[in-house]
Amino acid sequence: MKIITKELIYKTKGDSEIIDLTLDLNKLLIETKLSEGNCTVFSIGSTGGITTLEYEPGLLKDIPSFLDKIIPKYEKYFHNDTWGDGNGHSHIRSAIFKTSLTIPFAKKLFFLGTWQQVVFIDFDNRPRTRRIIAQFIGE
Amino acid sequence: MKIITKELIYKTKGDSEIIDLTLDLNKLLIETKLSEGNCTVFSIGSTGGITTLEYEPGLLKDIPSFLDKIIPKYEKYFHNDTWGDGNGHSHIRSAIFKTSLTIPFAKKLFFLGTWQQVVFIDFDNRPRTRRIIAQFIGE
Amino acid sequence: MKIITKELIYKTKGDSEIIDLTLDLNKLLIETKLSEGNCTVFSIGSTGGITTLEYEPGLLKDIPSFLDKIIPKYEKYFHNDTWGDGNGHSHIRSAIFKTSLTIPFAKKLFFLGTWQQVVFIDFDNRPRTRRIIAQFIGE
Repeated sequence: MKIITKELIYKTKGDSEIIDLTLDLNKLLIETKLSEGNCTVFSIGSTGGITTLEYEPGLLKDIPSFLDKIIPKYEKYFHNDTWGDGNGHSHIRSAIFKTSLTIPFAKKLFFLGTWQQVVFIDFDNRPRTRRIIAQFIGE
Repeated sequence: MKIITKELIYKTKGDSEIIDLTLDLNKLLIETKLSEGNCTVFSIGSTGGITTLEYEPGLLKDIPSFLDKIIPKYEKYFHNDTWGDGNGHSHIRSAIFKTSLTIPFAKKLFFLGTWQQVVFIDFDNRPRTRRIIAQFIGE
Repeated sequence: MKIITKELIYKTKGDSEIIDLTLDLNKLLIETKLSEGNCTVFSIGSTGGITTLEYEPGLLKDIPSFLDKIIPKYEKYFHNDTWGDGNGHSHIRSAIFKTSLTIPFAKKLFFLGTWQQVVFIDFDNRPRTRRIIAQFIGE
C-alpha cells in the first residue's frame, strides 16, 4: 500500500467557472502505477469547490445561474464588511459544495460514469491561481 | 492494511427516492473482516447523491419537497436544450449533494449515530439501475 | 502505513453554531507522528455538518442567516410530525452539508489555505454534546 501526493495548478477566471479535472486526474492515476485504491481531490482555499457533474455546455450555464438565484452576489453579507472584498457569496457557495472529494478506482480506472466528470468550481469574484491536491492511496 | 472494493446494485424509481444503504454496508463490513479503517461509498453517474440522514417517513417526504422548492423540476435549464431529457434539475441536485462519502469504522463498527443512516438519493426523473461502490481501507 | 482513530468531544449551543476544529486537528496530527496521508473528519449524528470555511465573525453570521432563508426553521416539515422535536430544518441542513470531510496532509501539515478552517456546524435546535471522529491514514 502506497500514498502518493500530487499537485495540480489551474489559472481560473472565478465567477463560478467550472474546470474539468478528469483528464489530469486520469494522467496522474496512470503515473502512480497503482491499480486499486482511491484519490482524494482537495482544493486549497475557502472560495472553491470540488464535485462531479456532466461537463456539457448547458450545465456550465445552469449551475452558475442557479447559484446566482439562491446565493446572490449582491446581497448583504457581513463578510464583506470584514474584508471589503465583495466575495461573501463565494464563501457560502464553497462551504456548501466543500473542497474535498474521494473517488475510488480499481483495475487502474476511476469509478466514474461516462457522463460524470470531476470538476473544480471557482466561486471567487476574480481570477485566481489555484492549487488542487490529488492524493492517491492504493496498491 | 488492505483495500477491498465491493459493488452494490439497486433498482431505483428516481424523483429523489431515498434508498437506505446502511444494512448492506454493515454486511459488507462484516465480510471484509476488517476491524479499523474507512469505507468510501461512491455512486456512479451524475444524477445521484450519497449522504447520511435519519431514515424516517417524515424526512423521506421533506427532502424531496425541499428540493422541489429550491431546484424546481420545470424551471428553464440549458441542460434540457442539450439533451431533451428533462433532468436538468437532477444534475444540479447531484452536483450539490455529491456522489461520495467516507465513513470511518473501528472495532468492526461504523461510527454512525443511532438515527443516522447512509443513503443514496436518486435525483433522476426515471427509474434507473444504479451501481454503488463501497471501498474499504483498513486492517 | 498506519490507521489511527481519535475522538474529539464538543459541547455546542446548536442553532447553526460554527465550531473551529482546526487547532484540535493540528494537535492530533502532530500526536500521530504521521508525515503523509489524510484525515477523515466525521461527525456522529444526523443534525450536524463538517466543512471548511474562513472562520471570521462576518461569515459566522452570514451562514446561519443564509440557512434561515433557504431552509427556514418554522416551515411545515413532516419530520416534526414524526417526533415533535421541531428540528426538521436541522436534518435537511445536515443532509446537504454532510457529516464527512477528508483532508490530505504531507510534511506533517494539512493542505489548508491560510483562511481555510475545518469546522463543525451544529444545526440542531438545542445544546448538544458532540462526538467527532478524526481518523488518520498515512505513514
